[in-house]
Amino acid sequence: MTILPPPLPAIVLDPIVRLALSEDLGRAGDLTTDATIEPGTQLVAHIRARKTGILAGMDAAAHALRLVDETVTLKQDIADGGLLTPGATVAVMSGPARSILIAERTMLNFLGRLSGIATLTSTYANAIAHTKAKVVCTRKTTPGHRAVEKRAVRCGGGTSHRYGLDDAILIKDNHIAACGSISVALQRAHDYAGHLRMIEIEVDTLAQLAEALPHKPHAILLDNMSPGMLREAVGIIAGQCLAEASGGITFDTIATVAETGVDYISVGALTHSAIALDLGLDIL
Amino acid sequence: MTILPPPLPAIVLDPIVRLALSEDLGRAGDLTTDATIEPGTQLVAHIRARKTGILAGMDAAAHALRLVDETVTLKQDIADGGLLTPGATVAVMSGPARSILIAERTMLNFLGRLSGIATLTSTYANAIAHTKAKVVCTRKTTPGHRAVEKRAVRCGGGTSHRYGLDDAILIKDNHIAACGSISVALQRAHDYAGHLRMIEIEVDTLAQLAEALPHKPHAILLDNMSPGMLREAVGIIAGQCLAEASGGITFDTIATVAETGVDYISVGALTHSAIALDLGLDIL
Amino acid sequence: MTILPPPLPAIVLDPIVRLALSEDLGRAGDLTTDATIEPGTQLVAHIRARKTGILAGMDAAAHALRLVDETVTLKQDIADGGLLTPGATVAVMSGPARSILIAERTMLNFLGRLSGIATLTSTYANAIAHTKAKVVCTRKTTPGHRAVEKRAVRCGGGTSHRYGLDDAILIKDNHIAACGSISVALQRAHDYAGHLRMIEIEVDTLAQLAEALPHKPHAILLDNMSPGMLREAVGIIAGQCLAEASGGITFDTIATVAETGVDYISVGALTHSAIALDLGLDIL
Amino acid sequence: MTILPPPLPAIVLDPIVRLALSEDLGRAGDLTTDATIEPGTQLVAHIRARKTGILAGMDAAAHALRLVDETVTLKQDIADGGLLTPGATVAVMSGPARSILIAERTMLNFLGRLSGIATLTSTYANAIAHTKAKVVCTRKTTPGHRAVEKRAVRCGGGTSHRYGLDDAILIKDNHIAACGSISVALQRAHDYAGHLRMIEIEVDTLAQLAEALPHKPHAILLDNMSPGMLREAVGIIAGQCLAEASGGITFDTIATVAETGVDYISVGALTHSAIALDLGLDIL
Amino acid sequence: MTILPPPLPAIVLDPIVRLALSEDLGRAGDLTTDATIEPGTQLVAHIRARKTGILAGMDAAAHALRLVDETVTLKQDIADGGLLTPGATVAVMSGPARSILIAERTMLNFLGRLSGIATLTSTYANAIAHTKAKVVCTRKTTPGHRAVEKRAVRCGGGTSHRYGLDDAILIKDNHIAACGSISVALQRAHDYAGHLRMIEIEVDTLAQLAEALPHKPHAILLDNMSPGMLREAVGIIAGQCLAEASGGITFDTIATVAETGVDYISVGALTHSAIALDLGLDIL
Amino acid sequence: MTILPPPLPAIVLDPIVRLALSEDLGRAGDLTTDATIEPGTQLVAHIRARKTGILAGMDAAAHALRLVDETVTLKQDIADGGLLTPGATVAVMSGPARSILIAERTMLNFLGRLSGIATLTSTYANAIAHTKAKVVCTRKTTPGHRAVEKRAVRCGGGTSHRYGLDDAILIKDNHIAACGSISVALQRAHDYAGHLRMIEIEVDTLAQLAEALPHKPHAILLDNMSPGMLREAVGIIAGQCLAEASGGITFDTIATVAETGVDYISVGALTHSAIALDLGLDIL
Repeated sequence: MTILPPPLPAIVLDPIVRLALSEDLGRAGDLTTDATIEPGTQLVAHIRARKTGILAGMDAAAHALRLVDETVTLKQDIADGGLLTPGATVAVMSGPARSILIAERTMLNFLGRLSGIATLTSTYANAIAHTKAKVVCTRKTTPGHRAVEKRAVRCGGGTSHRYGLDDAILIKDNHIAACGSISVALQRAHDYAGHLRMIEIEVDTLAQLAEALPHKPHAILLDNMSPGMLREAVGIIAGQCLAEASGGITFDTIATVAETGVDYISVGALTHSAIALDLGLDIL
Repeated sequence: MTILPPPLPAIVLDPIVRLALSEDLGRAGDLTTDATIEPGTQLVAHIRARKTGILAGMDAAAHALRLVDETVTLKQDIADGGLLTPGATVAVMSGPARSILIAERTMLNFLGRLSGIATLTSTYANAIAHTKAKVVCTRKTTPGHRAVEKRAVRCGGGTSHRYGLDDAILIKDNHIAACGSISVALQRAHDYAGHLRMIEIEVDTLAQLAEALPHKPHAILLDNMSPGMLREAVGIIAGQCLAEASGGITFDTIATVAETGVDYISVGALTHSAIALDLGLDIL
Repeated sequence: MTILPPPLPAIVLDPIVRLALSEDLGRAGDLTTDATIEPGTQLVAHIRARKTGILAGMDAAAHALRLVDETVTLKQDIADGGLLTPGATVAVMSGPARSILIAERTMLNFLGRLSGIATLTSTYANAIAHTKAKVVCTRKTTPGHRAVEKRAVRCGGGTSHRYGLDDAILIKDNHIAACGSISVALQRAHDYAGHLRMIEIEVDTLAQLAEALPHKPHAILLDNMSPGMLREAVGIIAGQCLAEASGGITFDTIATVAETGVDYISVGALTHSAIALDLGLDIL
Repeated sequence: MTILPPPLPAIVLDPIVRLALSEDLGRAGDLTTDATIEPGTQLVAHIRARKTGILAGMDAAAHALRLVDETVTLKQDIADGGLLTPGATVAVMSGPARSILIAERTMLNFLGRLSGIATLTSTYANAIAHTKAKVVCTRKTTPGHRAVEKRAVRCGGGTSHRYGLDDAILIKDNHIAACGSISVALQRAHDYAGHLRMIEIEVDTLAQLAEALPHKPHAILLDNMSPGMLREAVGIIAGQCLAEASGGITFDTIATVAETGVDYISVGALTHSAIALDLGLDIL
Repeated sequence: MTILPPPLPAIVLDPIVRLALSEDLGRAGDLTTDATIEPGTQLVAHIRARKTGILAGMDAAAHALRLVDETVTLKQDIADGGLLTPGATVAVMSGPARSILIAERTMLNFLGRLSGIATLTSTYANAIAHTKAKVVCTRKTTPGHRAVEKRAVRCGGGTSHRYGLDDAILIKDNHIAACGSISVALQRAHDYAGHLRMIEIEVDTLAQLAEALPHKPHAILLDNMSPGMLREAVGIIAGQCLAEASGGITFDTIATVAETGVDYISVGALTHSAIALDLGLDIL
Repeated sequence: MTILPPPLPAIVLDPIVRLALSEDLGRAGDLTTDATIEPGTQLVAHIRARKTGILAGMDAAAHALRLVDETVTLKQDIADGGLLTPGATVAVMSGPARSILIAERTMLNFLGRLSGIATLTSTYANAIAHTKAKVVCTRKTTPGHRAVEKRAVRCGGGTSHRYGLDDAILIKDNHIAACGSISVALQRAHDYAGHLRMIEIEVDTLAQLAEALPHKPHAILLDNMSPGMLREAVGIIAGQCLAEASGGITFDTIATVAETGVDYISVGALTHSAIALDLGLDIL
């Protein structure tokens, strides 16, 4: 069962949405609208998909609209995580024309980018749906957008790795080098992690894997391994902890990787290389 | 002559860079580093390109590093706008290992995204270098990132349309409809615009163009026109104002569009559909 | 036709209005009201003009009231840009007495200052109404108040120069000196400005004017010239670009300057030397 | 003895100075400087007075410069509170030309406005220097600028009334009406005020004064009274509390008011009707 | 008569409440609720006291709830300053289950801490209710919480010393040392304080007291004196100014101190050593 | 081995420290210091413990000092987590007297509160040092202070539960009720949690425990159980997941609870009922 994420809380959305509106309205507001639209003009506008994909970002878009004008009504026809087809109406706004036109670009910029991420994620997720593996995004997100982008990945059927440096421990080569060995690094991590904080360690070889396993990490990141080696690693891990594949995995290779039996496959491209999905505003 | 943009002022970079660092450090900071790296450890790290492209975003990346730790030195070998080749060292950092590891991901996220935009822009710019046309980005930017993304476009050899709703007037179909006619809309725009504010109007047909021209807009956006029609429009405009082509222009079609004689070609994809360029941190 | 500016968007007003309320309420709120007004007390209060002038700042004042208490109703009888006569009711507020008393001073401070600017502007604008020239304000605004003060100038019948350093290019003597010549400076400006960004250059002599004109600036600022010299300069410019007069122009001299045929006259005093218009709150 | 105020702490200046720089630099920074000034160019610039007056605002100006570029040195020749004569050098800056030009307008806007307030205050203060009375400013300040404007008044030889609604109790007619009587209002104020919070009450008549005095307010605001009535009121108060005159007092009337024996004279015009003092930047 | 403080204005509460919600919701919001509670689920929840005490903090708690979801209704049965008994219902919330569960912990954290302070204060206040002395809190508050904690003290029957460094002058030993003598320090304080700013000075001996009194401070802080010495000091002061006792006063000693005749007794423990009162959320 | 936490990153400390300084300096800064301390005066001051305890909060205190004046040097003699004895010098500051006096109270307020938490934690940790159990704090922290308080718990030898609602799943009775059963709730949690997010469930009875265990939560919170029942539960869990005891555990009962074999014991009192440790500033 996939549980779609509810809208992010306003307190989480607020900083990035305010920044977005501020940069678009600048110091003087919408000059064109001020010059050409009479204050009392009312409008009904449809947000429509122009392409096929998965919707994400309506929480941020709706928050932007509210910050511009709380009196505009927004009726959402498709929920985040829902399928978009070309021409489908996503939502209908009605209210003061000036407010809708002022909010339009910020709303579409959130929807386009985040639906792009959800859509890309869904293609990866579908490609491995016949396996138990899940595709996960990384910390390679747009600066300031981690919360909304990770939610978009979830809307597309993926899930998330760490949200930041503070919610899990991920020991990489530099950390191991600084500690002197995998054993010491994992020991220190267990000493430090505390309650409800998972520990994952990156390994490049089966020898490293063998050193790591007895120290009971919650997950092992198998970095840049061939499918054969991944399969072997999964066999060695044997359910003692989670197995994650990582490193240059593409849409073309993800199914093969998933079939090795890993639990998670992390793909930075979900967030750093998604392109915007085309959505537009049609005014009736 | 192309003048490369200097770093954005700290006061412009500050909000988005602080948001980025805050989201990565969360409430508890870098748990892994805290657990495994002794406070006194020093490091020398190279930021290296993994692919060919154009660099952008070192101003934001450097600001992030400064906010993490002012004592880390950053020696930049390639300036924003410079050519990246696989393996090339972009910059060398030296200082406390903990600080460099904490700043790493935020720095790379800025550099990857913004260099991706600069690189994509440069391919479009190169494709029309034999014409007088310039490629320009739009307001279809990542929310909150307009300043840094528009600068990245400039690093790639493009230039910029409006930065927001307040620094130029752009009259679109909805504005015309609300006013009743192109003539009235342009008249109102001239009345309202004031000093040093340009006025552009979007037209879809040559009839609209003919109606607009006598009202002396500073620029006309020729939307979704065929090359033949663009050429005709350019002939009609005849230097009375700037001519901008827009609407679904791709890398494959941009040269043909540029050869019609337009002054500017706006391409939303420069910012909404660039994928990150791969850069990494190598620790010596 | 003069189009009066609609209220600034909430996202533009918010930072300066919050700063204003915070500084007045401090850490403990309104001690006097807390001590003397029972929570349930209701009030009807009139904002009244005490002098003749032009109203501006109701958008900021209304935003302040909303931030204090959304349940207070505000009925506006005179719109920004409207004429004030002594005793005229500008707006009527009704709701909790405590809220109205808390918001009072911040509202009046915005209204007084901004109506003062609108009123001063209108006297300058009226003095040149028989010419085509328009009076424009400069960047000599109260720090943090540029958006509201420039809007107040517009309410008074003036218009605006640049809003900041980023929305137009204005080349002054120091820039020319750094480039070596007017020609080089304008050339670099054209190379750098990009789409929809106007270029203006300051000249002090007719020789400089002659050097500048062929490089097609959008506007020329004729600085500190006598009326005779201005008239001569306007003749030379001959409609090739906008002509702006600037430098120590006062209410006494503005008509003479306007009659030289310049398009714009910039007057720093509109914002840096306006005094507050007297408005007050009358409680029924 | 007059003790001049030291610079306001950075934490107090920061919000308003950041707001000011942000609004001037907008999204793209200083386009003109970017286009025309080579990054390495160095500059020495003098801030000079163009008129006679009293300096204020160097703390805010210096903070703005620091936020733009910490490497610019600022050597201050005249301290806040010092006398300015036309042509006098206030301070000398040396460092990167780009940084100085970027900070110039924000610095001058603070200095001009605040020196204007200090200068106006000094004329009022001088007019009553032969009496024991002191001139004080009110809460009729520019929204967001209370801290810097009240300091400017102090630089000019004035002092300050309440800084906000929370640092003293000032009972006006509406509060009295809500309580039913002066006695009840003062009683409630004493009950509520707590430690180290002064209580002042506004009275319009000698009857009100007689009612107020036995309830031991710390100060009485004698509103809109004639000099004769003020003198009588001062006689009645007889040092039992502070006596403050208020209401439409101008430069022409302040000496007469001061000679009635009041302790303080509050003048809203010090802040709401000061015009900027002319200071400029001269580049060597 | 004790006047209970009304809720703090939203503009005062906003920064600390937003900080609190942001830290609890982090980047991803409430994962548990997202996973387990259907969006449409409604809830009625009671905030109940688990212990005896005095309520404080409902203004901050209600503000938190509003920021999470304005549609949740909050019916308050006990007002701040009211008596809590175990099991008593403080307030009833009804609305979306998700919103109530998200706001719960932040609300209870404010209520628990602030009611703890109010409750502790009330025990001190009750212990001296037979005297004219009042117990006052100090600046030893939780960083960022001064406004809410000082209001909690007031809810508990105490009152407040200075709110910060800027609303009264308190001369301590270091200041006296820097000035050279009590006389000079008080003289400088009077010269500098201005209108409506009280001056208090700390003295450790009766000799210091004798030196201070003629310089007319508004209050004298009698630091670390024995009850006998306090009584003597009160006799010397003889109503010329306020007398405040301070320094290591505990619940056990406060009555004795109060009986010496001092006006105020300051106790840092009211804020720095209160423990939370137990309140909980019961869902029907 | 206990790894003491390094200072929190500046970006984490900044919001709460700025809020703290702003509330203490208000609008006008430190009036007393302004009046009595000459600007050039230098000072050497010792932060000293007045009681026995464990130090925490020097990172926040040092950040406050830096924000006040970067030129004050701070030499730290005892690190956070170190033992304090009465009279011990914690740190020595030297620099401008005004800056040190301005920062003093904010620094001490952080140090006092956070050392109080560390000290209380250490007493609990010591009481169970003979067992494998660790004492952990909860989300019952001071609003806005979670990062600094949870670090203080760590300095005292405790560790931390969730930092917020988003970094782990904790299923309580209301969530179970909403889902219908423990099984469904855990199933949904697993479906939703994603990578590196732990799942804990609260159980009150052994029957609930039996229902929960097969669904493989990472941890089980054994709420309000007697020592006997806890021991039985630990036997049933048998290392399949972490066992946490919770609910009204005090200093008197914690050892008994720890001896039942649980892994973690959560104690809200560590943060909600710690009292400040006494530290002071001694000026030489």
